[in-house]
Amino acid sequence: MKKLNIGLVGYGFMARAHSNAYLSVGQFFELKYQPVLKAVAARDPAKVKQFAHKWGYESHYADWKQLVEDPAIDVVDIASPNDTHAEIAIAAAQAGKMILCEKPLARNLPEAKQMVEAVERAGVANMVWYNYRRVPAVTFAKQLIDEGRLGQIFHYRAKFLQDWTISKDLPQGGQALWRLDAAVAGSGVTGDLLAHCIDTALWLNGPIQKVTAMTETFIKERTHQQTGKVSPVKIDDASAFLARFQNGSLATFEATRYARGHKALYTFEINGENGSLFWDLHDLHRLQFFDYRDAGNLRGWRSIHVTDADHPYMKHWWVPGLQIGYEHTFVHQVADFLNGLAAGKIPGPSFSDALATERVVDAVLKSAQSEVWQNCDV
Amino acid sequence: MKKLNIGLVGYGFMARAHSNAYLSVGQFFELKYQPVLKAVAARDPAKVKQFAHKWGYESHYADWKQLVEDPAIDVVDIASPNDTHAEIAIAAAQAGKMILCEKPLARNLPEAKQMVEAVERAGVANMVWYNYRRVPAVTFAKQLIDEGRLGQIFHYRAKFLQDWTISKDLPQGGQALWRLDAAVAGSGVTGDLLAHCIDTALWLNGPIQKVTAMTETFIKERTHQQTGKVSPVKIDDASAFLARFQNGSLATFEATRYARGHKALYTFEINGENGSLFWDLHDLHRLQFFDYRDAGNLRGWRSIHVTDADHPYMKHWWVPGLQIGYEHTFVHQVADFLNGLAAGKIPGPSFSDALATERVVDAVLKSAQSEVWQNCDV
Amino acid sequence: MKKLNIGLVGYGFMARAHSNAYLSVGQFFELKYQPVLKAVAARDPAKVKQFAHKWGYESHYADWKQLVEDPAIDVVDIASPNDTHAEIAIAAAQAGKMILCEKPLARNLPEAKQMVEAVERAGVANMVWYNYRRVPAVTFAKQLIDEGRLGQIFHYRAKFLQDWTISKDLPQGGQALWRLDAAVAGSGVTGDLLAHCIDTALWLNGPIQKVTAMTETFIKERTHQQTGKVSPVKIDDASAFLARFQNGSLATFEATRYARGHKALYTFEINGENGSLFWDLHDLHRLQFFDYRDAGNLRGWRSIHVTDADHPYMKHWWVPGLQIGYEHTFVHQVADFLNGLAAGKIPGPSFSDALATERVVDAVLKSAQSEVWQNCDV
Amino acid sequence: MKKLNIGLVGYGFMARAHSNAYLSVGQFFELKYQPVLKAVAARDPAKVKQFAHKWGYESHYADWKQLVEDPAIDVVDIASPNDTHAEIAIAAAQAGKMILCEKPLARNLPEAKQMVEAVERAGVANMVWYNYRRVPAVTFAKQLIDEGRLGQIFHYRAKFLQDWTISKDLPQGGQALWRLDAAVAGSGVTGDLLAHCIDTALWLNGPIQKVTAMTETFIKERTHQQTGKVSPVKIDDASAFLARFQNGSLATFEATRYARGHKALYTFEINGENGSLFWDLHDLHRLQFFDYRDAGNLRGWRSIHVTDADHPYMKHWWVPGLQIGYEHTFVHQVADFLNGLAAGKIPGPSFSDALATERVVDAVLKSAQSEVWQNCDV
Repeated sequence: MKKLNIGLVGYGFMARAHSNAYLSVGQFFELKYQPVLKAVAARDPAKVKQFAHKWGYESHYADWKQLVEDPAIDVVDIASPNDTHAEIAIAAAQAGKMILCEKPLARNLPEAKQMVEAVERAGVANMVWYNYRRVPAVTFAKQLIDEGRLGQIFHYRAKFLQDWTISKDLPQGGQALWRLDAAVAGSGVTGDLLAHCIDTALWLNGPIQKVTAMTETFIKERTHQQTGKVSPVKIDDASAFLARFQNGSLATFEATRYARGHKALYTFEINGENGSLFWDLHDLHRLQFFDYRDAGNLRGWRSIHVTDADHPYMKHWWVPGLQIGYEHTFVHQVADFLNGLAAGKIPGPSFSDALATERVVDAVLKSAQSEVWQNCDV
Repeated sequence: MKKLNIGLVGYGFMARAHSNAYLSVGQFFELKYQPVLKAVAARDPAKVKQFAHKWGYESHYADWKQLVEDPAIDVVDIASPNDTHAEIAIAAAQAGKMILCEKPLARNLPEAKQMVEAVERAGVANMVWYNYRRVPAVTFAKQLIDEGRLGQIFHYRAKFLQDWTISKDLPQGGQALWRLDAAVAGSGVTGDLLAHCIDTALWLNGPIQKVTAMTETFIKERTHQQTGKVSPVKIDDASAFLARFQNGSLATFEATRYARGHKALYTFEINGENGSLFWDLHDLHRLQFFDYRDAGNLRGWRSIHVTDADHPYMKHWWVPGLQIGYEHTFVHQVADFLNGLAAGKIPGPSFSDALATERVVDAVLKSAQSEVWQNCDV
Repeated sequence: MKKLNIGLVGYGFMARAHSNAYLSVGQFFELKYQPVLKAVAARDPAKVKQFAHKWGYESHYADWKQLVEDPAIDVVDIASPNDTHAEIAIAAAQAGKMILCEKPLARNLPEAKQMVEAVERAGVANMVWYNYRRVPAVTFAKQLIDEGRLGQIFHYRAKFLQDWTISKDLPQGGQALWRLDAAVAGSGVTGDLLAHCIDTALWLNGPIQKVTAMTETFIKERTHQQTGKVSPVKIDDASAFLARFQNGSLATFEATRYARGHKALYTFEINGENGSLFWDLHDLHRLQFFDYRDAGNLRGWRSIHVTDADHPYMKHWWVPGLQIGYEHTFVHQVADFLNGLAAGKIPGPSFSDALATERVVDAVLKSAQSEVWQNCDV
Repeated sequence: MKKLNIGLVGYGFMARAHSNAYLSVGQFFELKYQPVLKAVAARDPAKVKQFAHKWGYESHYADWKQLVEDPAIDVVDIASPNDTHAEIAIAAAQAGKMILCEKPLARNLPEAKQMVEAVERAGVANMVWYNYRRVPAVTFAKQLIDEGRLGQIFHYRAKFLQDWTISKDLPQGGQALWRLDAAVAGSGVTGDLLAHCIDTALWLNGPIQKVTAMTETFIKERTHQQTGKVSPVKIDDASAFLARFQNGSLATFEATRYARGHKALYTFEINGENGSLFWDLHDLHRLQFFDYRDAGNLRGWRSIHVTDADHPYMKHWWVPGLQIGYEHTFVHQVADFLNGLAAGKIPGPSFSDALATERVVDAVLKSAQSEVWQNCDV
């Protein structure tokens, strides 16, 4: 088994999820590559040392540039805040490293374009951690659509509802809360949450032609953690848009951090001529399926407990009826990446796929500002 | 259209449900008979007058015997407490009246046997108001079983959970609370709630061979409303039993009025070789169906919204998606009774069917006392 | 008890629902007025006669004008297709009749304005059958909002999904299918389904300021039943819009007849600072409630089975746990109308309330055509 | 951090789950002990070598006795079939090893008693892998009960439904199918599935006094994999019992492998005077809670998504809304064991706790055979 040396940037929530995936994947999947936790880089020397120790990274750097320059590193995994993605990715591409980048790809469209140019020019393997594609129930939805079970698609609807920023007392900036700081995050829920919805939608239902959008910032000012000053909040707290897909279907999308009672309710539904699908992150191991070809009086939404050996990824885990959780999506992505590497064909979502998502994000933000429909075409 | 003169005994909850059924049925079903609210009888002259006025009964009696003797009455409908069923039914049979009797048929097995003998000797049409057979989803379950969709049956489980008598302050006896007085009710939840579960089970799954049971009275003493004295409570607050059906399947049954959080949660589930069914009174318009013959990776419990025109009874009501409620089951029973009368074949459940339920009720109560398995055979 | 003579126009689905309400209300509610089924009018003499007989109307007319001129009639109830509403209502107002009109009030905004002018000039009692306000769970939602339990509202989302017109073989026009004929219906799902969603939303969440919308007609041509010719379909099969409410909340609305698997899935959700509510017509007897003031680790969406005596309207029906159905909403509306009449204060929704809904419908249709945000202000 | 050397016996499903727990626990919990995968033992030399390699065990044995005798081993973890538990555990106790044993503790009560005697005589730390106690939602249920939120308990009901042995073609014996061979498994679903239900019940609701039970073997003969002969099946395919707890509550228990449509549906519900709880393994991250102390008209079952930092174990994982899965229960058990070791107090379930479960299992099997109530007292 070949070793593949991973160099991780970041030590936050996502850095943990990725590290766990590298550590676990070999016990559950048959692979030709073995990921090695070679090095981790992050700004705070004490914290990065502690993280390296906890997860078993062989070494650690306080500057990501050292990691990128380290010849031992095969893959640079970017799990740091959004404002660092472009610079690190471009440097890593220039250094000839493979790159796995957290989503969203970048803070904005221009950054995203530069990143795609960089990896394409360098010809390096690249992938973006839109992990929800690899929830078994979501992958299964893709399979059912590709088999033509839904027929002509009429409707797509997705939402991602949270409620964790309703308090006026939350600062903007700082650990976890950098998502409220537009300078770091790029945008609010549009880039953070809708980007997930858009990635899945483009994958399942093809390109989006145009959108009309609306955004809102409910809490207009928050203390900035770095400056200590009360400053205008520049991210969007809520964002919704209508869309038309190239396949003729209509869509509604919505994300917010002000939907009391929902922690991370990402749901999507697709209605086709012959069937419909519904999925919900809060019970991620289930797929709801309506099949119009069932006998008329027996039609009903089926709640499929996606835990059988013939469901995507599930033969690698336990036995039917025993559900997996959130972090398994990252394990699946690593498995697919390593298998793709062995097969010479890296699976999506690539940087280029993520750029398509950025185009929609950009159109949404522009439409919300201009109050005019925006095209998402290149 | 022929007139059919109804004589109702009682003015409580069930008297309202029956009266509503007689009034509504003609607008929703095509019938050869038109029920006429001819007379109502009950002990309290003022209240029975008021009830007659409210529901449009042409006349009223303070003594049910007058009603039974009234030659204008075609059908005697017994909606009074359990301790009156046997005497009224036997008198009505002797008077040659058709009889519709509320459930349970009687307070105990000997009474029930006498009632069956009376109607059979008199040769009068008879039926018992086990109304849940005529919830469209339950009737549909029967249809699916009769079509052989489940194959060999392995398991049956039913429960009827309520929580309305947990307070120690409730008296026994009096309006609505006669259900806590063993002299009036016969038994507690076994005759009141389990009787429903048993009726459905015998209908759907055939005869029960034997049972082992357990009952409990949580509140040992309550003030008796008539005497004003604190007296021992002699009804069962909770009752559960295991059963073996003649078809080889195993069953669990349970009823209680001490299941906090459940108002009237009557549920049943049947597991067969090829499929399973589940139903729940709290959402009575849905039937859950699992079909093993679906493709393996697409199997899941289907939630069938039983509101289509090709579902039992539903073409008579509104349009797909618009649910009906509790009282419609009584309308369906009246419609079936009237259609059966026109066709010369009265549908079940007959007094004789209800006697089979009483045999199981009796076996359950005996087993709970003796702590020995009891046979339910004749 | 005073008699109130009802004159009904129409004999379709809604005419049945209204007639049933007039017949049932007196048995379940204590009222000062007794509705009398005085006359019914509709074009087809044979059918109107049959309808009158079935429901017990004392007389029938083949021309609604005769009914409006009949001095015995107190209330004109308009249950005929949309293209007749304005003419009948204006004539009835001029004749000094009280008016109950099916929704939507009219085919378009100009008609609706004339109707409001007519009833206001005549000073006659008026009400529109937006019946879903009187589902107990929906009325209860209104009560909870008015009690301030949700706090500041951030989000409103509603959808009404059906799937009954997906087949290309359905004609436009004719019994039931007049909803596909723009000349009769005015619009498609916007006026038919979204109008319900908008009425509820305005009631629960106040005025809408502006909208951006999108509509689609998936099947472009259908045979017209009257002409027999294949003609362009001019109604909207699907409609969605984003909205901003005056209270600062954001909303998404969607309706379609192309959502495979949904028969009449009208749902709404409201997210406030302190709580959220969700309701679903497919299980109309339940209200989902999230209360942020519950202890932190015990927070969860509560599924309230709205069947207790202290829930709106429910003390008039059965006992806790026994659900009611669709048609009860009409009974409630009649009860409220009659009680309002006795009290000298007719409850909403009035023609004027329904006009506010028409303004939003109009703005949605205009925005869909112009692709520009539209204001809904007067 | 002190090292703790693990010696695992077995390489099947449970051996994987345990190994994963040892590998993962250190990354998610702060611990004073670090488990080291020192050795694994199992009969097949090739397979045990492969397993050791996959999971990173330092060494491997083809005979568990060598592992037990290995002085480097601190903890013997028994993950082999039931017929090996007693012999290994007794030898390990005599060798002074700590012992973690898969459930059920033994094939029968006499074996279980000997095992408890052995560990108590040796004074070695011991624990049994009844992992479902450590599903966060289940641990949370225990916490709510211990806080007195339910008040006096009236009812307990549990079931564990599967459908994987319905086919007549399955052999008895062999990999995974040793559960059908009574000589290896001891019993069928009573020891395999009901044992889980009983362990949880005793933990949440205290001791069981007595039971009446019923078992069935639906497929009477199956080919035995070792002999190749069609032989009588001696395990129970289905088992159900009624029970009385010492606290006065009544219970129903049921397990089967013939409930079509259920993969691993372990559910329990507890009804108390002031509240009720419900949990379901198929959606293990949710706890349903009904609180009678909520305002009357607002009462409803709350669906608590047990993923917040203030829910048991969850602060160690991801963020609110992101669910964990089955294998995390083993990680939790290892964390608790290691923390208990550091604190000098090993948490349950101990061998002694598991013996209490065996007493109930034994009473159930005896009652099913004798058709007589059986006491479960010591």
